[in-house]
Amino acid sequence: MFREAIYHRPLNEYAYAYDEETFHIMLRTKANDVNDVTLIHGDPYDFEKETWRYQKTEMTKTGSTQYFDYWKVAIRPSFKRLRYAFQCQSLNGDAVIYTERGFFDHPPADIGNYFCLPFLHAIDSFQAPEWVKDTVWYQIFPERFANGDPTNDPANTLPWGSAAPAVDSFFGGDFQGVINHLDHLEKLGITGIYFCPIFKAPTNHKYDTVDYMEIDPQFGDKKTFKRLVKACHERGIRVMLDAVFNHSGYYFEPFQDVLRLGEHSEYKDWFHIRNFPIETAPIPNYDAFGFVANMPKLNTANPKVKEYLLQVARYWIEEFDIDGWRLDVANEVDHAFWRDFRQVVKQAKPDAYILGEIWHDSMPWLQGDQFDAVMNYPFTHGVIEFFAKHAMNSLEFRDSITNVLHMYPQNVNEQAFNLLDSHDTARILSLAKGVKARVRLMYIFQLSFIGTPCLYYGDEIGMTGENDPGCRACMEWDPSNQDQDLFKFVQQLISMRKAYDAFGNGTTFKFLDTEEQENIVVYVKETKEERLIFVLNNCEQAYSLEISELAGFKGKELFSEQEIQFDKQAKISLVPYGYRCYHQQKN
Amino acid sequence: MFREAIYHRPLNEYAYAYDEETFHIMLRTKANDVNDVTLIHGDPYDFEKETWRYQKTEMTKTGSTQYFDYWKVAIRPSFKRLRYAFQCQSLNGDAVIYTERGFFDHPPADIGNYFCLPFLHAIDSFQAPEWVKDTVWYQIFPERFANGDPTNDPANTLPWGSAAPAVDSFFGGDFQGVINHLDHLEKLGITGIYFCPIFKAPTNHKYDTVDYMEIDPQFGDKKTFKRLVKACHERGIRVMLDAVFNHSGYYFEPFQDVLRLGEHSEYKDWFHIRNFPIETAPIPNYDAFGFVANMPKLNTANPKVKEYLLQVARYWIEEFDIDGWRLDVANEVDHAFWRDFRQVVKQAKPDAYILGEIWHDSMPWLQGDQFDAVMNYPFTHGVIEFFAKHAMNSLEFRDSITNVLHMYPQNVNEQAFNLLDSHDTARILSLAKGVKARVRLMYIFQLSFIGTPCLYYGDEIGMTGENDPGCRACMEWDPSNQDQDLFKFVQQLISMRKAYDAFGNGTTFKFLDTEEQENIVVYVKETKEERLIFVLNNCEQAYSLEISELAGFKGKELFSEQEIQFDKQAKISLVPYGYRCYHQQKN
Repeated sequence: MFREAIYHRPLNEYAYAYDEETFHIMLRTKANDVNDVTLIHGDPYDFEKETWRYQKTEMTKTGSTQYFDYWKVAIRPSFKRLRYAFQCQSLNGDAVIYTERGFFDHPPADIGNYFCLPFLHAIDSFQAPEWVKDTVWYQIFPERFANGDPTNDPANTLPWGSAAPAVDSFFGGDFQGVINHLDHLEKLGITGIYFCPIFKAPTNHKYDTVDYMEIDPQFGDKKTFKRLVKACHERGIRVMLDAVFNHSGYYFEPFQDVLRLGEHSEYKDWFHIRNFPIETAPIPNYDAFGFVANMPKLNTANPKVKEYLLQVARYWIEEFDIDGWRLDVANEVDHAFWRDFRQVVKQAKPDAYILGEIWHDSMPWLQGDQFDAVMNYPFTHGVIEFFAKHAMNSLEFRDSITNVLHMYPQNVNEQAFNLLDSHDTARILSLAKGVKARVRLMYIFQLSFIGTPCLYYGDEIGMTGENDPGCRACMEWDPSNQDQDLFKFVQQLISMRKAYDAFGNGTTFKFLDTEEQENIVVYVKETKEERLIFVLNNCEQAYSLEISELAGFKGKELFSEQEIQFDKQAKISLVPYGYRCYHQQKN
Repeated sequence: MFREAIYHRPLNEYAYAYDEETFHIMLRTKANDVNDVTLIHGDPYDFEKETWRYQKTEMTKTGSTQYFDYWKVAIRPSFKRLRYAFQCQSLNGDAVIYTERGFFDHPPADIGNYFCLPFLHAIDSFQAPEWVKDTVWYQIFPERFANGDPTNDPANTLPWGSAAPAVDSFFGGDFQGVINHLDHLEKLGITGIYFCPIFKAPTNHKYDTVDYMEIDPQFGDKKTFKRLVKACHERGIRVMLDAVFNHSGYYFEPFQDVLRLGEHSEYKDWFHIRNFPIETAPIPNYDAFGFVANMPKLNTANPKVKEYLLQVARYWIEEFDIDGWRLDVANEVDHAFWRDFRQVVKQAKPDAYILGEIWHDSMPWLQGDQFDAVMNYPFTHGVIEFFAKHAMNSLEFRDSITNVLHMYPQNVNEQAFNLLDSHDTARILSLAKGVKARVRLMYIFQLSFIGTPCLYYGDEIGMTGENDPGCRACMEWDPSNQDQDLFKFVQQLISMRKAYDAFGNGTTFKFLDTEEQENIVVYVKETKEERLIFVLNNCEQAYSLEISELAGFKGKELFSEQEIQFDKQAKISLVPYGYRCYHQQKN
């Protein structure tokens, strides 16, 4: 047994409270090295005379990658306390007990050796709003979705869609435009909108806030925004705003005050200014987003800044009834701030959603005391590399997604914000070099994955666009220029997600092995009641394969809506970029 | 290269802010597998055209165990932000780049692959009071240290030391007794006292609090306690009290109210009561410490309970000027409570010390937002098993201590509360089967280790005692029954720790390899200015060895106070349980 590959620590995804009664425990071993793993566990105070009383529960292999196997188990201890160790049996017969103090041949008598989960406190556990699990998000870049009110257009507004989007161009998108097109969204089936920033700011993207308490007049006024939120809610659509708290804009009044008064400004500690006088070039002599001089970093550790921003967080919930905050550059703001932010937001609206923009491993923010979710870019990466770019083969894709599923606790994964693209990336159809069949596969995978999916405006009708500014083009509203088939396909996927519990969230996900390692992906999603087997051919060639898990299958193929029956051999033929979803009722 | 053994995650001891400018980064590899490790690192926003600009810094191997090598590096990024990966070169020549997205042959161009430390925020970093590093603690079990005022003795008090301690016996120890014997402590050289609980409670150990706002009358009154704290402070001795917040005593008024009124009690949510009426046997039908019915668990998530206990925490600091809180059964109380506790304590006294009682891996409490330290029982375990019990050989001991040093960030280790025994264990001399020479070696190791050492009352004069109640005997005050040589030895060690920076805290610690793997331990402690080499023979046989690191040494052996010079061969002969400490001034 390769002991150096065996890993556990009672932290993060390896040991956590899944709900108020249940601990989840995970072990990592070298791939194909360990045959079975059993959890030895008991209450830390349960002794018979001098002997600790423990029981044994078998663990399940929940995923494998090139390097590792992962094993999990759920335990509901009677008194919310747990001591435990792992009994690993290798393929070649040797067995070890893995404990906090290393390896033993037999379960050690001294309880001090065992791993410890001292007490399950609901207050410390990760708890996110229930509704998020069933939400399908739609991201809107407000300047580019629809112009519903030409009276609020900025002076230099270009006719809608008349030009490729530039870094500094304006097209007049606004709230009234969104209101006018809610039919489109409701028809598509989405149930949440994430709006890029709407507060007063000079740029078209508005990530350089001038006033966090005011709406940018080019989008409308507060009355219109209130009407927008109300209209969304009436259609069962939640509304999430973008909080840019890492940095302000250059024209934010406190920063202007510092520019004017230098070290005599009462706002000088609102930022991280290294020395006076302030310089903006060649690089700013104050901390900024990147080295962008017009985005000075806010000192969120300053109690006055914190008070101001928390007031902002509360105001838009209390006054406008928004349902969530997406937090820009969330990883560069201090944890202490986010802890207080969570308190304020959840006081204002207990089931508000808090979503951080973090591109990398985000475990420190997902401990239950800060965010409900992060933008799941590790998921994005795997999907794009495999389906869109063909830069990963299916084995690498399996590893990538298995890593995603095993890098966070399950309750975190169930809330993850799974996006394919955004205003910060190229659009999926462009990433897929215009091959729409690949986009379909991506949508299937995204919408059948654990978590909460988000569509980027316009992708559903086949818009293209390279990196910013290309991906921020005006929404195409001419039906003849919209890909109606693609729209219907996405619509169908969303309705499948709603119709079948196993399609969406709250289910287990598992890859099946196939002989074909380049392009074929087969995975199973399962609830107690039903089972879905997805087969995706990510290749421009047709492909046939046998799937042993489908032997004896009787049920429906969901895309064709045909009743299917397989005998002992389930042979499946897929057209290029073909896909299937077999639905089976259990029992 | 054994890729499965390579581990890093930008969390905990693997990546942290050491101070306001410095990140520490650690990598783990399989033992004897990797030849050198280089950190590839740069600012995440520092691009020249499209190309990310990074630099390389070599990492240092800081420790090895049977399974792993550990590599560390300190980085001070100009803009407090860092992206990084590890370049590992194996002994057999192959090299890999290890990133957040796995292994590469060459440093990947896409910065999304690299590990990320988004921003160094002082407010999030682990910061503990500076004075703790230079403190030598002394633990007092108040009922058993000294009886200075017979007028406050409980009715059933036994004459001092007249009997072996029993679970329910009383001997009349009190505050006046401590005041009377401060000379003893000052002479010994200790600079902090940790008092077991002093609040009103029926037992001799007082871990079953009746009133957190009152001193138990058997110890004196608040005036006397104030006098005690003042007298300690005048001698440069800090005072730490024991906060038993996990559970109250049975006679705590709110619990009595629940016993009387059942579900109609306004205090019913102060505890975790599973159902009414309350039952105490066979096991309590409410959560308790273990299954101890007279220690009902407090519901610290209840805002009223929290408010009450935080008021307690504040009161004893503000009114009595105590310097720290030791937190009983700290791991079974919720994290949310401890976060608020820290805020309150640090507001009341910014440099107060917060010490948790946790016996196992304590990383979740040592993130900077909760405790300054925990009782370092993993350290205790290694020292006792090796020196006292001879149940580990020196290689196993090296592994055990190397694990201790690599399981937490360095700034956490510098604050660790390193104890050899306590009121919850047998005494060291008993653990060492009465062999005082072993106790000396333990004291050398403890007092020369990184962290803050704590002596248990009476050990320094050779008291024995098995597990509770044996270890809680009355302090021996008859000089002819005290081991004066041992006292002087401890006194000498404490003064060495004060005299030589490299002896105490704030230095690096490293084991040297020796041929003898059973009983000999050689380790180096080092500052920029000086170097100490310790050689300990944990064996009842004499032993001679050559230490290549001492070749050409010129300096002083600190125990004998002799000037020593070695030529190319440094051959050392140790008597049974012999020890040396070679001190060398660097240039």
